[in-house]
Amino acid sequence: MSFTPTDYLPYDFANRRHIGPSPSEMSEMLEVLGVSSLDELIEQTVPSSIRQAEPLNFGKPKSERELLWFMAQVAKKNRVFDSMIGQGYYGTVTPPAIQRNILENPAWYTAYTPYQPEISQGRLEALLNYQTMVSDLTGLDIANASLLDEATAAAEAMTMAQRVAKSKATAFFVDENCHPQNIAVMQTRAAPLGIEVIVGAPEDLDASKVFAAIFQYPGTNGHVTDFTDQIAALHEHKALGIVIADPLALTLLKEPGAMGADIAVGSTQRFGVPMGYGGPHAAYMACRDAYKRAMPGRLVGVSIDARGNKAYRLALQTREQHIRREKATSNVCTAQALLAVMASFYAVFHGPEGLRAIAQRIHRKTVRLARGLEEAGYGVEPETYFDTITVECGAMREVIFREAARQQINLRRVGDTKLGISVDETTRPETVERLWAAFGIVDRKAGLEEEYIFPDALLRRSTYLEHPVFHMNRAETEMMRYMRRLADRDLALDRAMIPLGSCTMKLNAAVEMMPITWPEFSGIHPFAPADQTEGYAEMLEDLSKRLCEITGYDAMSMQPNSGAQGEYAGLLTIMAYHQARGEGHRKVCLIPMSAHGTNPASAHMCGMKVVVVKSAENGDIDLDDFRAKAEAAGDDLAACMITYPSTHGVFEETVREVCDITHQHGGQVYLDGANLNAMVGLAKPGEIGSDVSHLNLHKTFCIPHGGGGPGMGPIGVKAHLAPFLPGHPDTGGREGPVSGAPFGSASILPISWAYILLMGGEGLTQATKVAILNANYIAARLDGAFDVLFKGRNGRIAHECILDTRPFDKSAKVTVDDIAKRLVDNGFHAPTMSWPVSGTLMVEPTESETKAELDRFCEAMLSIREEIRAIEDGKIDGENNPLKRAPHTVEDLVGDWDRPYTREQGCFPAGAFRVDKYWPPVNRVDNVFGDRNLVCTCPPLEAYAEAAE
Amino acid sequence: MSFTPTDYLPYDFANRRHIGPSPSEMSEMLEVLGVSSLDELIEQTVPSSIRQAEPLNFGKPKSERELLWFMAQVAKKNRVFDSMIGQGYYGTVTPPAIQRNILENPAWYTAYTPYQPEISQGRLEALLNYQTMVSDLTGLDIANASLLDEATAAAEAMTMAQRVAKSKATAFFVDENCHPQNIAVMQTRAAPLGIEVIVGAPEDLDASKVFAAIFQYPGTNGHVTDFTDQIAALHEHKALGIVIADPLALTLLKEPGAMGADIAVGSTQRFGVPMGYGGPHAAYMACRDAYKRAMPGRLVGVSIDARGNKAYRLALQTREQHIRREKATSNVCTAQALLAVMASFYAVFHGPEGLRAIAQRIHRKTVRLARGLEEAGYGVEPETYFDTITVECGAMREVIFREAARQQINLRRVGDTKLGISVDETTRPETVERLWAAFGIVDRKAGLEEEYIFPDALLRRSTYLEHPVFHMNRAETEMMRYMRRLADRDLALDRAMIPLGSCTMKLNAAVEMMPITWPEFSGIHPFAPADQTEGYAEMLEDLSKRLCEITGYDAMSMQPNSGAQGEYAGLLTIMAYHQARGEGHRKVCLIPMSAHGTNPASAHMCGMKVVVVKSAENGDIDLDDFRAKAEAAGDDLAACMITYPSTHGVFEETVREVCDITHQHGGQVYLDGANLNAMVGLAKPGEIGSDVSHLNLHKTFCIPHGGGGPGMGPIGVKAHLAPFLPGHPDTGGREGPVSGAPFGSASILPISWAYILLMGGEGLTQATKVAILNANYIAARLDGAFDVLFKGRNGRIAHECILDTRPFDKSAKVTVDDIAKRLVDNGFHAPTMSWPVSGTLMVEPTESETKAELDRFCEAMLSIREEIRAIEDGKIDGENNPLKRAPHTVEDLVGDWDRPYTREQGCFPAGAFRVDKYWPPVNRVDNVFGDRNLVCTCPPLEAYAEAAE
Repeated sequence: MSFTPTDYLPYDFANRRHIGPSPSEMSEMLEVLGVSSLDELIEQTVPSSIRQAEPLNFGKPKSERELLWFMAQVAKKNRVFDSMIGQGYYGTVTPPAIQRNILENPAWYTAYTPYQPEISQGRLEALLNYQTMVSDLTGLDIANASLLDEATAAAEAMTMAQRVAKSKATAFFVDENCHPQNIAVMQTRAAPLGIEVIVGAPEDLDASKVFAAIFQYPGTNGHVTDFTDQIAALHEHKALGIVIADPLALTLLKEPGAMGADIAVGSTQRFGVPMGYGGPHAAYMACRDAYKRAMPGRLVGVSIDARGNKAYRLALQTREQHIRREKATSNVCTAQALLAVMASFYAVFHGPEGLRAIAQRIHRKTVRLARGLEEAGYGVEPETYFDTITVECGAMREVIFREAARQQINLRRVGDTKLGISVDETTRPETVERLWAAFGIVDRKAGLEEEYIFPDALLRRSTYLEHPVFHMNRAETEMMRYMRRLADRDLALDRAMIPLGSCTMKLNAAVEMMPITWPEFSGIHPFAPADQTEGYAEMLEDLSKRLCEITGYDAMSMQPNSGAQGEYAGLLTIMAYHQARGEGHRKVCLIPMSAHGTNPASAHMCGMKVVVVKSAENGDIDLDDFRAKAEAAGDDLAACMITYPSTHGVFEETVREVCDITHQHGGQVYLDGANLNAMVGLAKPGEIGSDVSHLNLHKTFCIPHGGGGPGMGPIGVKAHLAPFLPGHPDTGGREGPVSGAPFGSASILPISWAYILLMGGEGLTQATKVAILNANYIAARLDGAFDVLFKGRNGRIAHECILDTRPFDKSAKVTVDDIAKRLVDNGFHAPTMSWPVSGTLMVEPTESETKAELDRFCEAMLSIREEIRAIEDGKIDGENNPLKRAPHTVEDLVGDWDRPYTREQGCFPAGAFRVDKYWPPVNRVDNVFGDRNLVCTCPPLEAYAEAAE
Repeated sequence: MSFTPTDYLPYDFANRRHIGPSPSEMSEMLEVLGVSSLDELIEQTVPSSIRQAEPLNFGKPKSERELLWFMAQVAKKNRVFDSMIGQGYYGTVTPPAIQRNILENPAWYTAYTPYQPEISQGRLEALLNYQTMVSDLTGLDIANASLLDEATAAAEAMTMAQRVAKSKATAFFVDENCHPQNIAVMQTRAAPLGIEVIVGAPEDLDASKVFAAIFQYPGTNGHVTDFTDQIAALHEHKALGIVIADPLALTLLKEPGAMGADIAVGSTQRFGVPMGYGGPHAAYMACRDAYKRAMPGRLVGVSIDARGNKAYRLALQTREQHIRREKATSNVCTAQALLAVMASFYAVFHGPEGLRAIAQRIHRKTVRLARGLEEAGYGVEPETYFDTITVECGAMREVIFREAARQQINLRRVGDTKLGISVDETTRPETVERLWAAFGIVDRKAGLEEEYIFPDALLRRSTYLEHPVFHMNRAETEMMRYMRRLADRDLALDRAMIPLGSCTMKLNAAVEMMPITWPEFSGIHPFAPADQTEGYAEMLEDLSKRLCEITGYDAMSMQPNSGAQGEYAGLLTIMAYHQARGEGHRKVCLIPMSAHGTNPASAHMCGMKVVVVKSAENGDIDLDDFRAKAEAAGDDLAACMITYPSTHGVFEETVREVCDITHQHGGQVYLDGANLNAMVGLAKPGEIGSDVSHLNLHKTFCIPHGGGGPGMGPIGVKAHLAPFLPGHPDTGGREGPVSGAPFGSASILPISWAYILLMGGEGLTQATKVAILNANYIAARLDGAFDVLFKGRNGRIAHECILDTRPFDKSAKVTVDDIAKRLVDNGFHAPTMSWPVSGTLMVEPTESETKAELDRFCEAMLSIREEIRAIEDGKIDGENNPLKRAPHTVEDLVGDWDRPYTREQGCFPAGAFRVDKYWPPVNRVDNVFGDRNLVCTCPPLEAYAEAAE
């Protein structure tokens, strides 16, 4: 019998797996909105003037199985050799339990930045462990919860030193033994800020000429040097000493703090985080207590909750760019939380004895290697080293280099006749033997010698990692349970919607995550030879091509490893373009009042002069003000920075006009890609007048937020800007790298590539439409109960909406904070608070949430509105009510109950699951107490005991 | 400077990761025991007469990294071709979200069998979904929660039919179209039970001659046949009709229930569970309501908890072998829970529309393939098919077979001139084209036709999977959260010790789990050609060799896929040995009273006569009784079955004597390997007189319990028994397979192999010693508060101890159940209850638990003892007390509190974590209600609504 196949497409990833609402749910939602079809809603929402003419066409989307098969074929084109290149990237052993229970566990990787401390105690503890580890190893008072990479951390240290140094000098000294990419990134950063960079040998430092100096420890070619004297000289001239230090070396070597250093930075990559062709890894920064308020990045601190129990939180947030805006001196807006967590667990897994043993093994293998080479007559430098040596090979250099490659070992070319060799945790005895063979040495049987090849004075004298967390029982059973306990304290996407405006917390599908832990992607050194990285090259090319197609740009740089880094790179590109045309005087950057704080911060870092443009009543850019300020800037106009759809969640009709005005005055348009999730497939930034955008791959393109990083912020540019994209010393081309690695955090790019290949053009477009549907559905359901600020044409919003909670402050003294915490009782992460408008909540549901989850959220919000009304009506006390006492914990339930509402009302509001309720581990966290009593390392056990009492 | 390397060995898996107590913890524990060293404790515990002379020597243990590298090399020796062999094993697509969130998630794979329903609601729900799915697809009233594999399920159906059929016939009809391995396993099972197996064509069935008949649907060569008439004829003769049905085919084809079948069995492998060289997969069994009490295996049922809320539990447990003992007619003691959960989620992910679409695609591709072959002149059979065809190739058969292999496609040889081809979910259009090419067909462009190649009468008329769970929103976001919610309801090893006597719930290390999801292990058909499975061969050989070394046996069979299956296979081996020596009359099997219920059940299945041997006062085998019964059996003595150390947790001194007596009377010794975790490295069963043992790889060798399966029960034998080990039709050799696949659940063997390679001989031995230490530490700490039944020499126990709780029943009416449930409040899974002695708890901590966790358990037990004392002393009510009302839930906290103890006392007893407390989702489950009101499929939504009210 002939039959009609069922029209259900089981492998339709876009509509069956990625997009939340089912077709029937969508019909119900459209009905609520009073439109007959999704396209009608889009017509009403997205101005036709900006719509792209042709739909995205990426051919047939892949099924999950096809995707994995295809990715495996591409992965095989990468060849995983033993890397002995060093230069800041080392082989490391990720403990399998960490890989499985952290990196591959959605409870960790789908979490958001821990701005809501009550639902983030788990990762805050892990990050506090990280800070404690860094602080201990560097011997400095305070450490932040990670930065993007070592090179940018060094650049941040430079600008931080400039801010805090009492020296009035304008030059900055850079040790010539720094890794080349560190020097290059610092130079990029210094130029627009007018900082003169002096690169030289440490012994040539003239401390009177600089506001600070930075030294690499061990140096890029292996030197282990004590910088105590140089730092003392710097201090005499009120200048600062900065050390870039390898944390593993610090388990054996005198720490920067003991040398008197003011700041230390470095990479914790080799603490269990794969090289991944350059990233992501967590860089660290530590400094003396005196400078803590000048330190960029996130800082976890210890505070107390409403019951007086110990609770963690992000401290000193007023330092951050999103609050300091144009006064900000750094645009650092994210961290590498997931990688910092991995590195901290690596330290917990190994403890100080284990780390020390690993460092000793590496050193002993290096000594063995060096002795073998020396005995065979090779000249080996330096005299003092930890893990890296440089070998003089004369005319045989290339022969040996190739022979090593034939042995599947990568070395580093140094100068014209030398080879650099770095030993790491993964170096086997037989690796050394294969390497000797490449140097023509056979049958050498020497064992390991126990000798430190550095002076006694450089031996570390102080202890480290003495906190009990680093002395836990290290049985995997215990470690696994500790990881689970921490994960369970947090609320991430694997349990509930995270309706964060502008942060696009969408599905991070399991299949998208799979390739990143394949050795062919994770095990590659960023400076591995091109013939070993053809898989990466293929991915980079195809992904760039597709992102260009999506955005309407002509070229893409994958180097920026965060959104803010992308902004910065984009503005640098614009500035380089102006300079190349002899218009280096163009420095004015117009930025609307509502812009994200990183916009002015990035502009500042590029040496631009920020001019703020007003917003009109409806939240749009005030076009008259824009025109006037563009005219005022005239020939000095460098750029404008706009966000589209606007940070108010609206498709502004005037966007083309804004671009035209900018171009008329010779400026370039930077379109912030944070909201690209509302545009993909519907409109292209490059077609509506923009010249450059960054793309938040961790928002629109499914890289998970990782609890506060990693991110990726590649930039797309029109053709005229392409020659001015960031270069890299390793890949040649233009100078001016912004990141340590040529392709930023390359190893997470498979996630975004997979997403695009799975969705296809039609799927991506449908996702955008449903993101807009979901947002409008929430706005419609909450309208009346809450004022939706800023609607566009036809009363529609884009992919997010801003709910005004200021009236409740007046009517019931209920703050936006109270609502946010009450949402925790309902089992939700709060929306973005007080941004872009103070006293509001910005809600972005994304396309991945189902109607049921949207309804649960709406019911939670409506029940909160009723609770507010009860206060307004005097039916419940203004202070002792479910909102003020939110979030509720099990401790509340267990103890006496002296409240004018029931336990049931307190703990099971409308949105809460019954059986599967999420219980926050702490009551409301006291922010003021935490900043007043700043503690940023693990508190001693007594504190735990006290808190427990 | 020269240095002394730290003595910490960071990669010492045995002592740093696998074994729980750290060296310093061990010292403290030894002090509590009053011994100066671990070896002194072992001296006191393990009789020197049984100690092995030479330590295990497996060379240097591998680090985790080396292990993964080594396993990858071995894996590469397996070649993953497109399998079109069929014969019960099919390519399938595991949804990545299921792989990551179930199969690779310790919350699922480390769970124990859900005997304690309050902490198992998550997997009970998933298993209930499985039962509902099976019941729906087969059209039968009731389904169990999985059996080991299709072949053993068929054998179980045969014996079940014999039990329930009113026909007095002794023969059993087997459709010749059954898969060969199904026929062979049924024949193995039938022989000792005296069942005559008649293999023939369905049309030749004489229903008057048999008590039941079994048919394969579709048949092994593809036939799709309606068995309605045959079943009607069987019913006329009071015989039963059984159908082995492919559940995917049942989405299109008339279901067994509609044919009148009484029982259906089959494999749910192709529901997302990889082939894995034969297993593990979940087989199913469904039957008419009338026969439910005769059905083997576990059955999940719906009941209510103490608040009247819906709660799941295992139903009708009185059917099980561990209760029926020698009356048992099946030795089924486990299930394939993890795989059943995966299969059920596969159905939830796809829903009825998706499954139907997948089946249709397969059918359409089969038709396309067949048409192409027919048009090229090949004879294709059968006339009616779903996914499998047989092609007449004449003299070219081998050429085509090899050419297909060259195209990386495996086919099935049928007869001398035919090839069998099965299409599955993974068959691509280009696979068909490559296959055509192997048949010499090129450039065929035909598309898909929409025609069913089976009669209209065989089209399925009924609906299926109508329960809302199969109509959930199928967005991955929703699916991921559903999987997380279910996981969070359960308490598994990833959160707390599971101190189950005899079940050895030890660490399942992440690294051990990694290789099993590599395609090279998971993607292989069990009947793939040997030149594609060299990696498996290497592993099987090396693992067997090492297991022989550990056990002192000479040969190993990997075929049994559970412990009970191993017992059965071992006894069959003994019987075959006797028969070969002309001593087939030997049928008496001596089994101590304390033996596990599977022992007599397995003996019964082998046609043996069980004679029970008494226990002495101290729990040991009563040697006089043993001698007397052996003498009484005389020449009829076939075997004895002993457990060592005994099920009472004691190293009996008399074990050698027991073996000697058995041998003196010509019997063989079967030593149950369930307690091997107390022997590895210290004593070898094969050296103390045993002839055969099964090894529970899921206990001693780290295969996780998976929430109730998979397991692996290979058997080791002395050389004289080796020729009589189970054979397999696929591998040739002796007949008498006990499992469907030659090497049982081969794809989980890498776990045990990894464990042995990581631990090395010394590590394995140390693990055994620490297992004994941990158990003795608990016994010592609890001694006084609880009576420890059965101590060995020097007052020591082996690796587990039995705590007597019977006195409390008298003194305070506190039952063993009350204590078990109160342990849930303390955050623990209960120990084994009432086995081997009613009214006791058997505690086995294993070597993987840390001292801190042991102490937490002891404190929980001691606080429970104090609670009992309060009742004894009349200080608290005998009914309304924390024990009787345990476990406590959040619902208790939220509601009114009318109890003579505080909420704090109820919910936070001594063992409970404060912040990280585990909350059971239900109060105590009512077992009686559940069995009285048996519901074994998902209840309708109203029931949920009611329960919620």
